[in-house]
Amino acid sequence: MERIYFDNAATTALDPQVLEVMMPYLTEKFGNPSSIYSYGRETKLAIENARKSVAKLLNAHPGEIFFTSGGTESSNTAIAAAIRDLGCRHIISSPIEHHATLHSVEFWGRQDGIRLSFVALDAKGHVSLDSLRALLAGSKERCLVSLMHANNEIGNLLDIHAVGNLCKEYDAIFHCDTVQTVGHYPISLRDTPVHFINGAGHKFHGPKGVGILYVNENVSIKPMINGGGQERNMRAGTENLYGIIGFARALEIAMERYEQDSAYVSELKQYMAGQLKAQVPGVSFNGDYDGRCLYTVLNVSFPKTEKSEMILFNLDMAGICVSGGSACSSGANAGSHVINAINNDPNKVPVRFSFSRHNTKAEVDAVVAKVKESI
Amino acid sequence: MERIYFDNAATTALDPQVLEVMMPYLTEKFGNPSSIYSYGRETKLAIENARKSVAKLLNAHPGEIFFTSGGTESSNTAIAAAIRDLGCRHIISSPIEHHATLHSVEFWGRQDGIRLSFVALDAKGHVSLDSLRALLAGSKERCLVSLMHANNEIGNLLDIHAVGNLCKEYDAIFHCDTVQTVGHYPISLRDTPVHFINGAGHKFHGPKGVGILYVNENVSIKPMINGGGQERNMRAGTENLYGIIGFARALEIAMERYEQDSAYVSELKQYMAGQLKAQVPGVSFNGDYDGRCLYTVLNVSFPKTEKSEMILFNLDMAGICVSGGSACSSGANAGSHVINAINNDPNKVPVRFSFSRHNTKAEVDAVVAKVKESI
Repeated sequence: MERIYFDNAATTALDPQVLEVMMPYLTEKFGNPSSIYSYGRETKLAIENARKSVAKLLNAHPGEIFFTSGGTESSNTAIAAAIRDLGCRHIISSPIEHHATLHSVEFWGRQDGIRLSFVALDAKGHVSLDSLRALLAGSKERCLVSLMHANNEIGNLLDIHAVGNLCKEYDAIFHCDTVQTVGHYPISLRDTPVHFINGAGHKFHGPKGVGILYVNENVSIKPMINGGGQERNMRAGTENLYGIIGFARALEIAMERYEQDSAYVSELKQYMAGQLKAQVPGVSFNGDYDGRCLYTVLNVSFPKTEKSEMILFNLDMAGICVSGGSACSSGANAGSHVINAINNDPNKVPVRFSFSRHNTKAEVDAVVAKVKESI
Repeated sequence: MERIYFDNAATTALDPQVLEVMMPYLTEKFGNPSSIYSYGRETKLAIENARKSVAKLLNAHPGEIFFTSGGTESSNTAIAAAIRDLGCRHIISSPIEHHATLHSVEFWGRQDGIRLSFVALDAKGHVSLDSLRALLAGSKERCLVSLMHANNEIGNLLDIHAVGNLCKEYDAIFHCDTVQTVGHYPISLRDTPVHFINGAGHKFHGPKGVGILYVNENVSIKPMINGGGQERNMRAGTENLYGIIGFARALEIAMERYEQDSAYVSELKQYMAGQLKAQVPGVSFNGDYDGRCLYTVLNVSFPKTEKSEMILFNLDMAGICVSGGSACSSGANAGSHVINAINNDPNKVPVRFSFSRHNTKAEVDAVVAKVKESI
């Protein structure tokens, strides 16, 4: 059976061009980058070139880019550092963050002397800037604001500049989880008022098990993982060499292809929304789907019926891969915490469709036809 | 120039047979293991089969094996959990641990209410069990004992059973850093009194960026990295799928080949020690090199001369890869903390040679000849 993969917000296929540059490091170039002899120097150089490339593409300094095991580790590091090293005692986040943030801020919120607040959301699921300002203004302690750039389930985009400027005004530390936007949008960190961002290679056709943490040069933090002097004493452990090489190449390709891919994928999304509206009675869309939203994500609600409750199962049977929410929490039966927070309608069944450059209109047609049949 | 790689304690070449089983997961099998549809189920199954295989080879339960980003993260997790979740308030470690342990216990030792002590070492650099017993007996608080199974620089092996039984007697938690022994020795965890061990794939011809943490089923801990429900809520973040598959295959191969490889590598080490003794005046050996020691590591001291101080450089020029100590700290100029702790002789230049099944006697001969020339 041919499979149709419409879950690119969960993970993406590794680009063969990315694998190609990883292969030498999976074979003959195996030296430990911390070793001082030839084998080590060649892999160290490769890592530093990868760092320079990533920094350039994000308009940051190489010294601000740290490689990690993924987006989750990066978020955990940023949040821990803001508390431990930067004096933040009040965390302001939102109820629709990815669990990597949500469970981290909840962990820290349980520690003595740390307070956790959530911003209000507007009707479309956007962060209310008035609510954020009120929380910042009402805080006597230094705040950490941790808000995601794009929501992984509904796709809503944060006004990162507005939030960053508010944080500046109140001397708050700003961590922005950019896992869904690194590799999907041009990001110029030198022009963005943010202290920490994070990315994960596998979200844009790079490898799994590798990510980045950007730490603005104006803040100085300590590592979360202690040990050897890797990553300039900021992230101990022998480097995931192939992963790092792959991350950098994937980001290069993503940025080279940005104009064409974003236009193409946007059109696929719009086409699918149109087809669903035209062909599926009672369909609705979650979040600001046709406004400030990822071009890669379309979160749809179907009227709840005995049949539509089985939609994920039936689509899977037909070889169609989509999800009810975040992959990271799809083991749980509690439903999506994001959908629950913005639009808790028990008579709807939410499904996330998310696209990449590998998808086609023909696939959209096939999926819409199957959806019609399944509800 | 042909290179001779005698630094296998730093990292090893990825086995082509390991890469072979990783390749499908680097290409078509890219699903997020947390996704519930076909692409996700096939990668989830692969991870669970990898876990079962690792557990079986270490004689543990699959539920006791957690995949991480490497040995360093695993050690950090074990140590943090012993303090945070298991009530340990007194850490007992040694001055010759790997920095992954040393810098972690130092970090925790600086926290309020946590005490850090180091065991004494005997003349050969072994942990004094009398010293350990005295520290345990003198402690009013619950202890965490973190001692490595084999020292990565001098190769000394700990009597893990004796230490584990002592810990049992005093209700201490025992973390044993087994990064240099997993894949190099048969380990039967069901018969070993230990709470935590850790391993890193790249130390035994597996991939970099992946490791394991074993958590004995009798202790219950919380994750160090918070987020999604991966690894049964113990290690959040999309799994390093290919890394995990590769880790398991590398361990299978290592254990299949154990008898022949350990005999072969032991003989290489003995041969090199003999040749150095016969041909290099003033040579000596660090640690218990011909006693309770890794068969993979030979740590040699050369008399210090203007010429011998350049030995690493000159060997590198000749394409010979060896190290002065741990790769993880080779950026630093302070010398080896291990050699300093056991045998702080300023008139000696220490060099670590470490072997794998890919090395040959002819390579030993070439290296010994070059060493003679270089001192």
